Amino acid sequence: MWRGGEGVAQPRGLRMKDPPGAPGTTAGLGLRLAQAFFAAAALAVMASTNDFPSVSAFSYLVAAAILQCLWSLSLAFVDIYAILVKRSLRNAQAVCIFTIGDGITGTLTLGAACASAGITVLIGNDLNICAENHCASFETATAMAFISWFALAPSCILNFWSMASR
Amino acid sequence: MWRGGEGVAQPRGLRMKDPPGAPGTTAGLGLRLAQAFFAAAALAVMASTNDFPSVSAFSYLVAAAILQCLWSLSLAFVDIYAILVKRSLRNAQAVCIFTIGDGITGTLTLGAACASAGITVLIGNDLNICAENHCASFETATAMAFISWFALAPSCILNFWSMASR
Repeated sequence: MWRGGEGVAQPRGLRMKDPPGAPGTTAGLGLRLAQAFFAAAALAVMASTNDFPSVSAFSYLVAAAILQCLWSLSLAFVDIYAILVKRSLRNAQAVCIFTIGDGITGTLTLGAACASAGITVLIGNDLNICAENHCASFETATAMAFISWFALAPSCILNFWSMASR
Repeated sequence: MWRGGEGVAQPRGLRMKDPPGAPGTTAGLGLRLAQAFFAAAALAVMASTNDFPSVSAFSYLVAAAILQCLWSLSLAFVDIYAILVKRSLRNAQAVCIFTIGDGITGTLTLGAACASAGITVLIGNDLNICAENHCASFETATAMAFISWFALAPSCILNFWSMASR
């Protein structure tokens, strides 16, 4: 649904009423790219250690980061298309799908980041066995996953808000 | 803000327009009591083990469960008061405070549950050292924290929805 040209005096092709960060805006595209980048960074750092499959939480982080990266990249392409053709993405069904997907991937990413953080703190602070483990890599991957979730939260809240306020 | 008697033909004291589960309804009170009960159960089961302070994630679960229990009990008392005096809780500021509080406690509870789940799976499945640990207690406490979060999610979504749709 394109709402740019509803007013008489508005030039065709102008996108109106979209708050910064909503889908189809440059800020929204930036958020999506940040999510995908930090999820990919978490994935790469975690996968660069050779012993991550021995801990279930780290394997789960890799899986959640892959899902987060694919989801954010898909929506980034949708955003790029909407920006290129100067169309708004305030379609009710699209926003509903975006919100549910954001909620699911956000919960999974937060859960994976928290599980990895629990293990990392156990290894580093409680047991003090960092010498025989890749603590720095684990911590970096966990931090990247948290940053990806922090970039996802505004997208999810904005989508849910625009879904509820119509 | 009391909206029960706005219509001419409506009897005074009837609460209208509140969806089931919103604050001030019986279903909302049930959700709050379920959150508080399961958070208290997670706290009790985890605190009954003597070695939980040796793992940071388990200490964090205890702290998050205490916060969740206090928050849900406070809102349960508010709900009981609203039901007893037959008033609606659709006040904009109150709903905003409820939503932000639900969001914060929900994120903390989910994070604590996921961190504990990561450690529990590490102990039970990856390292197979359940014989020298209280695996059953850890698993029960983690499950109770997850159930408490599942009871919190509808409250948070309903509050956010009613905040955005006004």
